[in-house]
This record gives sequence, C-alpha cells and structure tokens, in this order.
Amino acid sequence: MFIGLRRRRAKEQYSGLVAERQKILASIDTDFPRWYQDVLEKAELADNGPVRGTMVIRPYAYAMWERMQSEVDARIKATGAENVYLPLFIPQSHLEREAEHVEGFSPELAVVTHAGGKELTEPVVVRPTSETVFGEVMAKWIQSHRDLPMLLNQWANVVRWEMRPRLFLRTSEFLWQEGHTAHATREDAAAYATRIHLEVYKDFLENVLAIPVLPGFKSPSERFAGAINTMTCEAMMGDGKALQMATSHELGQNFATAFDITYTDSHGQVQTTWTTSWGSSTRMMGGLFMSHGDDSGLRLPPRIAPHQVVVIAVKDDDRTVDAAKHIVADLAAVGVRSRLDARVTPGFGRRATEWELKGVPIRVEVGPRDLDAAQVTYARRDAEGKSTLPLADLASTIPALLDQMQDDMLANARKRLTERTRHVSTIDEAREAAKTGFAVIDWAVLGEAGEQELNKDAITVRCLQTRDGQMPDPLNPEPDLVAIVARAY
Amino acid sequence: MFIGLRRRRAKEQYSGLVAERQKILASIDTDFPRWYQDVLEKAELADNGPVRGTMVIRPYAYAMWERMQSEVDARIKATGAENVYLPLFIPQSHLEREAEHVEGFSPELAVVTHAGGKELTEPVVVRPTSETVFGEVMAKWIQSHRDLPMLLNQWANVVRWEMRPRLFLRTSEFLWQEGHTAHATREDAAAYATRIHLEVYKDFLENVLAIPVLPGFKSPSERFAGAINTMTCEAMMGDGKALQMATSHELGQNFATAFDITYTDSHGQVQTTWTTSWGSSTRMMGGLFMSHGDDSGLRLPPRIAPHQVVVIAVKDDDRTVDAAKHIVADLAAVGVRSRLDARVTPGFGRRATEWELKGVPIRVEVGPRDLDAAQVTYARRDAEGKSTLPLADLASTIPALLDQMQDDMLANARKRLTERTRHVSTIDEAREAAKTGFAVIDWAVLGEAGEQELNKDAITVRCLQTRDGQMPDPLNPEPDLVAIVARAY
Repeated sequence: MFIGLRRRRAKEQYSGLVAERQKILASIDTDFPRWYQDVLEKAELADNGPVRGTMVIRPYAYAMWERMQSEVDARIKATGAENVYLPLFIPQSHLEREAEHVEGFSPELAVVTHAGGKELTEPVVVRPTSETVFGEVMAKWIQSHRDLPMLLNQWANVVRWEMRPRLFLRTSEFLWQEGHTAHATREDAAAYATRIHLEVYKDFLENVLAIPVLPGFKSPSERFAGAINTMTCEAMMGDGKALQMATSHELGQNFATAFDITYTDSHGQVQTTWTTSWGSSTRMMGGLFMSHGDDSGLRLPPRIAPHQVVVIAVKDDDRTVDAAKHIVADLAAVGVRSRLDARVTPGFGRRATEWELKGVPIRVEVGPRDLDAAQVTYARRDAEGKSTLPLADLASTIPALLDQMQDDMLANARKRLTERTRHVSTIDEAREAAKTGFAVIDWAVLGEAGEQELNKDAITVRCLQTRDGQMPDPLNPEPDLVAIVARAY
Repeated sequence: MFIGLRRRRAKEQYSGLVAERQKILASIDTDFPRWYQDVLEKAELADNGPVRGTMVIRPYAYAMWERMQSEVDARIKATGAENVYLPLFIPQSHLEREAEHVEGFSPELAVVTHAGGKELTEPVVVRPTSETVFGEVMAKWIQSHRDLPMLLNQWANVVRWEMRPRLFLRTSEFLWQEGHTAHATREDAAAYATRIHLEVYKDFLENVLAIPVLPGFKSPSERFAGAINTMTCEAMMGDGKALQMATSHELGQNFATAFDITYTDSHGQVQTTWTTSWGSSTRMMGGLFMSHGDDSGLRLPPRIAPHQVVVIAVKDDDRTVDAAKHIVADLAAVGVRSRLDARVTPGFGRRATEWELKGVPIRVEVGPRDLDAAQVTYARRDAEGKSTLPLADLASTIPALLDQMQDDMLANARKRLTERTRHVSTIDEAREAAKTGFAVIDWAVLGEAGEQELNKDAITVRCLQTRDGQMPDPLNPEPDLVAIVARAY
C-alpha cells in the first residue's frame, strides 16, 4: 500500500510537471530555435545586453563557463602552454599587416574613434582576436632556438559585430581562449596542434561535456584564413545540425613571415618559425544546451553541472529540512556539489520542475514519509521515473551514480550521432540526409565542385576524416578521405 | 676546509650577483620609479601594448594574477556571491542615467562610433565599469524580498583612458573584479560591505600578498561618487607612498533609486533596496612589486609566487641534473610549486641572479659537492646568505620554511609601516612626515580645510580610522577618528 501511494503521488507529480513544462518551453521537436530561446530565458542562463548582439551571462550559466574554463585551462597547461593577457585595443594600422587576415574580419570590426574626451589621431580597433598582438610579442620575445617552442594562451573577450546574433552561438562580444605557439619545425608545430585538438578539445568535449565529436580537417574552402590546415571538432545538436566546437590551426610559416617571428638556430643562422593557433569559446555553452536538452529543459552532464545534486525538502517542517541539510553536507563531504532547496514557496511541484528545467543531474526528494522509511526518493535527469535509496547508502551511491550518468549521456549522444549519420554515395543523397542529420560521402566523389553545389542549400562540409572516423595525419594525409556534410550553426 | 671552500664560493657568487644586479636595475633607494620600470622589464612582467596606455601582461606576471583571482574569488564566493558576465559595450545614453556617475568618468571614456562597417546610430561606450549594467539587471532580476540579498560579482576588463599611464598602477585597460549587491536594509548592506572589506580584501592582502593594510573610511572628499561610505585598504609602498589596494562602498539608496532596484516586501509593499559595490584590480600587482621589492628585484611571498622554489642544477652532468629533477618531484609531492633550472647556458651565476630578480622565495642549488655531502645549498629570497640542508630533510623542511617566510615578510612589511608612520599634531608636521611615510593626525584637528591645504602638496587623506587603528563602525562611527595622510600613487 505504501508503494501504491508512492506511485500515485509520483504520478500526480509527474503529470504536474508535464503540465508546468508545457507552459514553459516550446516543444524541442517541433520548434527547436524557439525551445533554445525559451530555455535560455526560463533556466536563467542569459539575457540580451543593452547593445544589440551582446549578452548578459547569468550566474547559473556563468558557473558552467567557469567550470569549462578551469577544465580546458588545466588541459592547456598540461601541454606546457602559459597564459598571458594582451590589450583589448589594437591600432587600426596593425590589422593591415596581414592582408588575408583583415579581409576576413573587416566588416566585423568595432572601431573606437574617440577617447579621453577627443578624437583619436589613429582609430583603434576592439580586438576581433589577439592574433596580431601575439605576432608582435612573439617576434619580440623569441630570439634563439632556446626560446622555442613558445607556447602561449589567452582567456579574453573579443568582438566581432554580428548582424544576426543568437545568444552563445553568435554574439558581437564573446569569451574565448586563443592559443598561439611558435616552433622550430613543421613536425613539431603539427604535433602540437594535433595534441591541442585531441588532448584538450576532444577530450574535454567528450569526457566533460559528454558531447561526442567528429575530429577532422576542414576542407580547403572552410579552412581558417592563413592556415595550411584547420583541425575541427564537429558535434551534432539535438536537431541534427552541426556545431563547430573548437578548432586548431597549423599556420605554416605564413603568419611567422608576416610578423617576422624568427629565431637564431644553434649554428647562428636566422630561421623562420612555424606557428599554430587554436581556440574555443562560449559557443560551447550553446553546444552543451543544444546537445543534451529535452522537452523539460536542460540536461547537464554531472562533470559540468554547477549543482550535481539538488536536495529538495518536500515539506518545510524542521525534521525534513534538517534531514535535507544533513544530506547536502554528507554529499559535499564526498565531493559532490550539492544544493539544498528548502524554500517554503513555490510548492514542491514547481520547485521540482525548476530544477528539471535547469538540468540538475540528480534530484533527491526528502519528505516525512521518506524519513519514516529511512530512505530518499531520487530522479536522474536523464531517465524517466523515480527510485528510492536507503538514507545510509546515499554518500556511497551517489558518486557512482553520477559517473554512470556521465557515461550514459555520452553514450546516448553518440547513439544519436550514429543513428542520424548516413553513409551516402551521391550528392543528392547527401542533400537528403542533411535534412535530418549528417551525411558521410567520399571526398573524391564530392570534391570542391560538389561542396559548392551543397553550399547553395546551406549544407557545408564539416570535416574530412579517414574512413575509420579518425583525423587524418597532418604531415601525410591519407588519400581516400571521407567528407562529413551537414547543415550547421 | 670544506666549509672554507663553500664560504669562498658563496662569496664569489654573491659578489658576482651584486655586479650583475647593478647592471640590471636602478637603485631602489635613489630612483624608485626607474627601479619599478626596470624590474617590470627585466623580470619579464609586462610590456607596453601597441596602443599607448595599454599593457601586455607576460606569463610570469599573469601566473600571479591567476593566483590572485583564484584567492580573491574563493573568498568572494565564501560570502555567498555569484559571478556573472556583463557586456563590454554600453549605450552612451545609459551612462547619462546617473549624472554623478557620468561626471566622474566622462573624460576617461573610449567610444565606439563605427561597427559592422558603418557608423552606429548611437555610439557605444567601452565599459569604464559595469555599474550601470549591474543596475539594469538587478532591477530586472529582483522582484520580491525572497530575491534579496542579491550578491553578484564580475571579473572583467574595463577601460578608463589614461593620460599618464604607468604599468599595473594606471593603465587605460585593466583587469578587475567588481561586486554589486542589493539588500533589504541598510544594516544588511553595511554588514556585507564590511565583510567584503575585511574577509575578502584585507585577509587576502595580508595573508596572501603579505601586505599589511590600514582599513578605514575615505574622507568625504575622497569618497566614491554616489557612495555614502567608502571603505578602503591602504598600503605603504617601499618608497613610503600609499597605494589604495581595494575599496568597498555602501551606496545607500542612491544607486537603487537611480536604477529602480526595488522589491515587494512580505506585506506586498514596494521598497527600494540598499546597494553596495566593491572592487580590486591588477593594480594590486603593482602594489605587490612595490611593497616587497629590493635592489635585487622582486621578492614574492610564497603564497602568491608562481614557483615557490627553483632548483638549480649547478653543473649539467647527469648525476646533478637527475638529483635536481628528483628534488623537484619530491617537493611537488608535498604540494610545493617547484621549478627545475637545468639549463646549460647561461652559467650558474647569471641563472641565480635571474631567479633572484624574479623573486622566487627559495633557491635550491645542487652541485656535485652538495651531492657528495648528501645535502643542498639554499637561499631565502628575503634573507642574506645561504644555508645547507640534508637532502633527506628537504621535503619535510621546505613547506615549513615557506610558511615561516610568508609570516616574516608580512611582519617585516608591518615593521616598515610602523617605523615610517608618525603620530603628529599639526598640519605642518603631517606635511613633513608625508615626505618619507605616513602621518597620523586627529581628524578633528585636520578637518576638511586642513585636508585641502595638504592636497596642494599632493598629500591626501588615505583613510579615517579609530584611535586603535580599526575601521570605524559604518552605522555608528566613533566621534574621535584619526586621519592617515600620505603621498599616494
């Protein structure tokens, strides 16, 4: 009978949730863009800033960005790179040094013409990237072969004026890291760019954000301006479209030549370095939401969630609230980021919906009946229904449950990626497949002509891979690559 | 005889160091400003950016800033505040909302007039602070008394055009954190602003940077525009001048009224909140260098030092280098940030000078003779001479030595502060004392007229304190305060 009651209560609560949630969010299946806007607002992730195209990142989302920064930064530092800070402002003339670079950014630039109460003699540009300043400082700081490799990274805001802004995905100002390195040989530069691509970006995206990515090269037409090779991590969003999550570029000697980044080798000869650059941004936040979200809101992988567990006191009597507090403390003691919800209002149902919307991985509910039975009720955000756990086992069970959930979320995202990727042999089939997901087609079959053909329908080559889904060898690419094509953000 | 040799070698090395250092830095006693410029350059801390007044923060200094951020951020979060990110750009019209505020910043503003390839309809300002945007979002996010207190903080870059820039101390762009909070009562706001001042800033400055600070109120004329009370942490630099290290403001209801930051109380009545704001910046980096530096360069307190110990292999034979590597690993295992210097060039003397210049707290030297005696030679950066330690005791001794050094550096800085602070009873005496340090004078004796008098000689009231050197009570200030007056950066 107890179980019957529990079930009935759970069911009532569940239909309560459904009713609430239907009011809250557009359907993810029928209107994905609207769902995205809704979830950003209702889960209190971001607001539009007062200047069009800018963004206010609210505390809940910023806490995720802090975790992203810390995870990516630790991986970057493990490769030996050091962080620097370069100025926001760049003299307009400095951007003209590398012609190809300017052409890429010019319409996106924000220009300061007045400062200190008067017009500036030379306008200054708000950095669209710090690339030119990295070039200047590396040219200055690198003297001898003993200064190589020079491995630098920066966390900063950059500005690229957006005509069609979309929060996190395309904003006029965004937060990112950009790395720039200089090496004595192409081999060393290629190995380092690959290491960043695989050990920093791919590892972080898959093992922290639980987003499986397709590693590969950009096609020549999609390559970063000035790069001899662009490595990308492409992910599939909930609507089957692609999002480029991070890129790592080999710049050959193009950039070093433009900026005179040279060194004296051990024989006293002046040599030009080989450089790389690589970046990831707040765009990954959009990718996180669009990869895992469902009709009820966000679903956050435990490793990135600001609160891994929310403990809801179902009633506001002292005994319940005390028990909930104890659970939070016990979980914190075993390293679980836990949050107490002992609010009197709103009611339990609405509070549960709120945490569901915010994607908290595990919701623990404690009420008088649970306490009588020395147990708690809990729900995993990535599964239907609820279960119970003996109170005494919580601290030993929850960490493993969170690990399991992390793995399951990656596996489920990978399953969707596989299911919605079709191997095709003609351009027409590729076009058809890209309506709902990714298509894989021989690059020799598609070619740059076929790529242009697909571009007309807003379908792009996301990356080129080996037949077994690996990134090609930068120094000796395999001859028979396949192209991943898709619609993209 | 062994000891004799050791002494002779140490002495030769020491005079080598002196010779080297004399070439490197201006004398700290005779030309403090030049010494500061020199140390920034030679210790590879910062460069000028390509736009006048901007700054490149090099890896060694940025590593210190990262530690500062992490220490300050942890303390801010412990008070319950959450981080957000607000946009770099603010419409010019938004700054006009709070007249007093604009007057304070207008000549310092950088204005973007062109973006996206055309002239903007309304110019946008690069944030001199995010105060106005905080006002707007708090007005929006705060609805009911249940949303209070709202405790927000932001780490970001801000721009205030500088006519007389000086790296770290006054740069057109700098990095900082600014907190903004809203409370239901003045009491709560005052208590929170005090908590930030004492538990975040004063605690961090004294216990991490080893810089003793005088906590107190700003005099009315030095108060932040719009504040009803400004709490400051004032420190004494090596040349006896003061540097304001961080401030925390009670804004009363001025700011909340201007931005309509109101809430519905439990009786359904609309009430105006009481707000605070508080900030600290990369200026603290300048304070760190100028507080502890000496003729040989930086001296870094262990808790902020990027490398707490450098282990120098005196010779480049395998045995020595292996031993040095083992020491680094052993120290890392007990949580000491250690760095290996096993470079072949430059020679030992120049390498030792370099680490001294960079202020590494403990320099461990390992050579063949040390290894024969199963010991190492070490030097504390805050003391003259060298000592030896048995190899086997290193990992157990060094952590305690670092703690001791941290305490000693704070005690020594406090000793200087005390020695160079004179209690005076007339304005003339205060003027005289401010030539070499701080003066303490009864605020009732000085008054606002005396303050203006001193201002003519570039001497300012740094803060008002109780007679026993404490910060006054914000809600009920003691009647007989004293003023600390000094020249200042």
